[in-house]
Amino acid sequence: MTISAAVSGASGYAGGEVLRLLSRHPDVEIGAITAHSNAGQRLGSLQPHLLGLADRELVETTVENLAGHDVVFLALPHGASAEIAAQLPDDVLVIDAGADHRLESAAAWEQFYGSPHAGTWPYGLPELPGAREQLAGARRIAVPGCYPTSAQLALVPGFAAGLLQPDDVVIVAASGTSGAGKALKPHLLGSEAMGGMSPYGVGGAHRHTPEMEQGFSRAAGTPVTVSFTPTLAPMARGILTTATARVQPGTTAAQLRAAWEEAYAGEAFVHLLPEGQWPSTKQVLGSNHAVLQLALDERIGRVIVVAAIDNLTKGTAGGAVQSMNLALGLPELAGLDFEGLAP
Amino acid sequence: MTISAAVSGASGYAGGEVLRLLSRHPDVEIGAITAHSNAGQRLGSLQPHLLGLADRELVETTVENLAGHDVVFLALPHGASAEIAAQLPDDVLVIDAGADHRLESAAAWEQFYGSPHAGTWPYGLPELPGAREQLAGARRIAVPGCYPTSAQLALVPGFAAGLLQPDDVVIVAASGTSGAGKALKPHLLGSEAMGGMSPYGVGGAHRHTPEMEQGFSRAAGTPVTVSFTPTLAPMARGILTTATARVQPGTTAAQLRAAWEEAYAGEAFVHLLPEGQWPSTKQVLGSNHAVLQLALDERIGRVIVVAAIDNLTKGTAGGAVQSMNLALGLPELAGLDFEGLAP
Amino acid sequence: MTISAAVSGASGYAGGEVLRLLSRHPDVEIGAITAHSNAGQRLGSLQPHLLGLADRELVETTVENLAGHDVVFLALPHGASAEIAAQLPDDVLVIDAGADHRLESAAAWEQFYGSPHAGTWPYGLPELPGAREQLAGARRIAVPGCYPTSAQLALVPGFAAGLLQPDDVVIVAASGTSGAGKALKPHLLGSEAMGGMSPYGVGGAHRHTPEMEQGFSRAAGTPVTVSFTPTLAPMARGILTTATARVQPGTTAAQLRAAWEEAYAGEAFVHLLPEGQWPSTKQVLGSNHAVLQLALDERIGRVIVVAAIDNLTKGTAGGAVQSMNLALGLPELAGLDFEGLAP
Amino acid sequence: MTISAAVSGASGYAGGEVLRLLSRHPDVEIGAITAHSNAGQRLGSLQPHLLGLADRELVETTVENLAGHDVVFLALPHGASAEIAAQLPDDVLVIDAGADHRLESAAAWEQFYGSPHAGTWPYGLPELPGAREQLAGARRIAVPGCYPTSAQLALVPGFAAGLLQPDDVVIVAASGTSGAGKALKPHLLGSEAMGGMSPYGVGGAHRHTPEMEQGFSRAAGTPVTVSFTPTLAPMARGILTTATARVQPGTTAAQLRAAWEEAYAGEAFVHLLPEGQWPSTKQVLGSNHAVLQLALDERIGRVIVVAAIDNLTKGTAGGAVQSMNLALGLPELAGLDFEGLAP
Repeated sequence: MTISAAVSGASGYAGGEVLRLLSRHPDVEIGAITAHSNAGQRLGSLQPHLLGLADRELVETTVENLAGHDVVFLALPHGASAEIAAQLPDDVLVIDAGADHRLESAAAWEQFYGSPHAGTWPYGLPELPGAREQLAGARRIAVPGCYPTSAQLALVPGFAAGLLQPDDVVIVAASGTSGAGKALKPHLLGSEAMGGMSPYGVGGAHRHTPEMEQGFSRAAGTPVTVSFTPTLAPMARGILTTATARVQPGTTAAQLRAAWEEAYAGEAFVHLLPEGQWPSTKQVLGSNHAVLQLALDERIGRVIVVAAIDNLTKGTAGGAVQSMNLALGLPELAGLDFEGLAP
Repeated sequence: MTISAAVSGASGYAGGEVLRLLSRHPDVEIGAITAHSNAGQRLGSLQPHLLGLADRELVETTVENLAGHDVVFLALPHGASAEIAAQLPDDVLVIDAGADHRLESAAAWEQFYGSPHAGTWPYGLPELPGAREQLAGARRIAVPGCYPTSAQLALVPGFAAGLLQPDDVVIVAASGTSGAGKALKPHLLGSEAMGGMSPYGVGGAHRHTPEMEQGFSRAAGTPVTVSFTPTLAPMARGILTTATARVQPGTTAAQLRAAWEEAYAGEAFVHLLPEGQWPSTKQVLGSNHAVLQLALDERIGRVIVVAAIDNLTKGTAGGAVQSMNLALGLPELAGLDFEGLAP
Repeated sequence: MTISAAVSGASGYAGGEVLRLLSRHPDVEIGAITAHSNAGQRLGSLQPHLLGLADRELVETTVENLAGHDVVFLALPHGASAEIAAQLPDDVLVIDAGADHRLESAAAWEQFYGSPHAGTWPYGLPELPGAREQLAGARRIAVPGCYPTSAQLALVPGFAAGLLQPDDVVIVAASGTSGAGKALKPHLLGSEAMGGMSPYGVGGAHRHTPEMEQGFSRAAGTPVTVSFTPTLAPMARGILTTATARVQPGTTAAQLRAAWEEAYAGEAFVHLLPEGQWPSTKQVLGSNHAVLQLALDERIGRVIVVAAIDNLTKGTAGGAVQSMNLALGLPELAGLDFEGLAP
Repeated sequence: MTISAAVSGASGYAGGEVLRLLSRHPDVEIGAITAHSNAGQRLGSLQPHLLGLADRELVETTVENLAGHDVVFLALPHGASAEIAAQLPDDVLVIDAGADHRLESAAAWEQFYGSPHAGTWPYGLPELPGAREQLAGARRIAVPGCYPTSAQLALVPGFAAGLLQPDDVVIVAASGTSGAGKALKPHLLGSEAMGGMSPYGVGGAHRHTPEMEQGFSRAAGTPVTVSFTPTLAPMARGILTTATARVQPGTTAAQLRAAWEEAYAGEAFVHLLPEGQWPSTKQVLGSNHAVLQLALDERIGRVIVVAAIDNLTKGTAGGAVQSMNLALGLPELAGLDFEGLAP
């Protein structure tokens, strides 16, 4: 069985990463490659690393161009996905790498995005409890945000096991610049980005905050609140997330380790490292892997979990392809079974 | 008046930075430049950027070579400073860029460093409450660690003003690789460091933790506990510290801003940025400046303060020279009155 | 048919890259993984990105451990390969990623390496004229150096077509730091490498010079001399080679373009970019691709050819695997048919 | 005597660097700070590292705002300088960091810039033969381009001494991204620039080519032709120039070394390194220094000279301030007498 896939937003980083992964997927044939302002151009001039697709021409992102495929990947600015998805047939698998369908709470959506809520789709983070059941056979999938992917992989096992207190989670994360996309903004220039670090969206302003809280709350069965500070690091790819939460009184380091080990025992892409080894984003660049380590700081009663992913792969396009595999009944690892690029 | 200064540990990054700053100090003449295994070499082969001192020969780090100067800078591995300092005359100003004399608590010292405590010297962070009084006329000064410099600049105003709760401070910081020194360790190779981020010393293990707690506790007048996670960022210099603490009930954003503004109102090197502008390490590279911004996350009751410094300048050698100026009655800004290097 | 492969030197960058590629090769099973001083360790502690092989233990690099495989990859310091290879059975395919068997001229070998010449093996750069014939069925293969790979891909078409003058070739190349290996040398520290560029081996001293001259001379049918200046660039991977040669009088830009187009018309891994698009190393990171572009500078009568490869992939391990495929009659693209990682 | 200085183009990198240098110049008071589209903004929001000038407001770049100062620095797009300079009084020192007044040949100007030639001003590279005489008392100065600064420092001693052949100079240079300015172009994004290298302006197309040829020709007393290939390196600052020329028959390494030593014997900012030490851009970041080394490749009859400068300092703003000092009779080193920032 060969799956035909259309990819929209193909001139951006998320769209380019979807294409990179699909181009090596054994069961997928890449159909329409679409863009907005770059329609009409060769893909090779916009994604020069995709040499095998260099001569493909980008077509306009329209329902007509996207329809007629088994799968449609949407890598569009938020707000744009819902409109297109509504016009695609119900039996087409639509995978939205944007934010439109991640949040359950319309209030949270409106507070953080300032527009009407488009609804909630099955959430494409297969390693969460119960996620695979929801994704099997799904025809609409919301790919998690990159920060929420790493944060949920970091802390959900503790919430699910009842070992963590639900208030006062503190998360600080560093992301490579590709997380900010290809937007032509001064602070994203290489001259500015190289050699420096800076925060943004501090104080609860970042839109990924409610998504993290939603994930933790689902796992904990009670509302969880998060202080999240993202920072921009001088690297193109990768997220290093330091997530800390207060443990329930009496929780031991052994209990914590056991909970995380159990949560990821059968997972191919999520790795709790051996004790003493801490994650580096360089372990996972370009791969669908996530690496984790944790420590209990007994002096202060917090568990510190550090997770590393590639924001564009496991954090976006890899998660999308993994979810596609599950939705379509393909092997979960198809097209994703390779290691990160290091050094 | 010309001050003669000797610099030990001159082949390392801290020693090199002391020399860079002293070479432009209007009141200082650089005397002996000492090293251990590199004694006998030209400085130009070890610190090739110090072109004006390139032909100076490094001599052995001995009491004989260091004595006879007005000031002696010690940039040595911890444990080595105390022994040398004890043999230098009392009227020589000895400035220890190492850790030996930072901590008051012998117990904390022994727990984190595993060796006998060498005693406590006046603490070279002039912007702390009461620090300038202690430094004026001092002849022994302990230069703060780089992370504690940024962390204390970030949070002390809040503790001093009684606005912060003393438990459960959470600090995550990213440092450039020069903070780890010139040690030849695999993870510090460029191939490993470039393009990646990783944590270390997680879970309360980093030696700068008790130094932060000491500073916060002094300011708060009550014991403060800290969870500190340092990370290694792909840049040569700079520290970005994200420091969060729970505010006392009822604390407003305006109160917080006022406390920090007041604390740094007269300071030449510490800058609370205008609202809306967040610090970047690129603002301060190579300079003695620190830049700060804060936000109150009302949803979770925490203040998030982000501080950026250059770990080698304000975080080490700049703080040392500033403290020297204060101890000797020189203008506090002498030799330090210049801007950071950007882009 | 499943090929069993042993990889020596597995704790270094070249060995790690061979393992990364073999781990996704459909026809290969990875057998012994060997090292010298790191024997006994988990691979996960040395190559933390190779998550699928993390629990494999490195064994000592001995003939006993390497024998009994269909293919043995040698990623050893020069001088070490010849001794081991001599003790391996003739029907085992031995692929030497080191320098020992690249040069035909014993005199050149001794001048540049200062040791006795170990002999010459078929040269693993399949895109050179006649190379595939030599590699088919070979049981000993010398993998080209990384710089010579890019230089020969850049200029051989012109020499083979008789369009270039044989004297006064000038080549300047920039390499990522992984080209220098994992050696713990001060100038390779991240603090030194990040943010700076420097040359090395200037004035004909670099050992890759005679290898380039050998390749050009074979193609030209007459001795070619080269001035080669390598530089170290602040990136982990990638080589950008700027190769210039004087064209024969009367040579036109169209003739040049035609020669290169023809040379690489059927090649899957070597891409002459569309006119106006210039190579970036970011197009090829982690892939076996090479990208090229050329221009005739009519004012000075030189062709300038710029080539970008990944030094560890096409420049080492990818070339090795591609050559293995050819030697064993596997599809040439097996295990290598994927795109580079960008951004 | 205090000099009043106006700086135009202050929101760009060149203008920012002029301000950084002037802010520490003992004889200069900074007057008007002007910009075009950013007029009305705080300098602190555009050049956040210039903390001492953060509250200064940018005013419109008009003759009115610039007049009334002793010195006017123009850091404007080419074409804009000539028009403004023509309206400034003759006794105001106008220093043009742009290209408008560098070239003598109107034909070369028109070929490379496509607009009418604005005339030629004294050339602000004081280390060239005879340059200081031209600069003393000058009231119009053209600051050299960044690449031509490094290229001329690299090769002019050889041409002036008659040791180099005038045809077939080959220059390959790597520049940090700040050389391309703050323009919002996709290839200058951090995500694109970090981790990669690429060439541009290949084949004689770069506008700095005729400027190099002009400098070499003046020194040689005969027309010199150059093949110049610039490349973009993953660093914010710095130029590493590899310049090669064929030596006259019989030229020895000792003759070459003597010529360069003599040329720079009395220079404070240009350093021929000790034999065996090669330049790194990290030696000179943020400083007005240039470092050089050379080797004779006897096999091919070329001298290879490698020079490192900071493109924004010695390559632009530092050269401008140094020239200002000479024109106004200030000490040549005033405001520039400090070391580069490393590591």
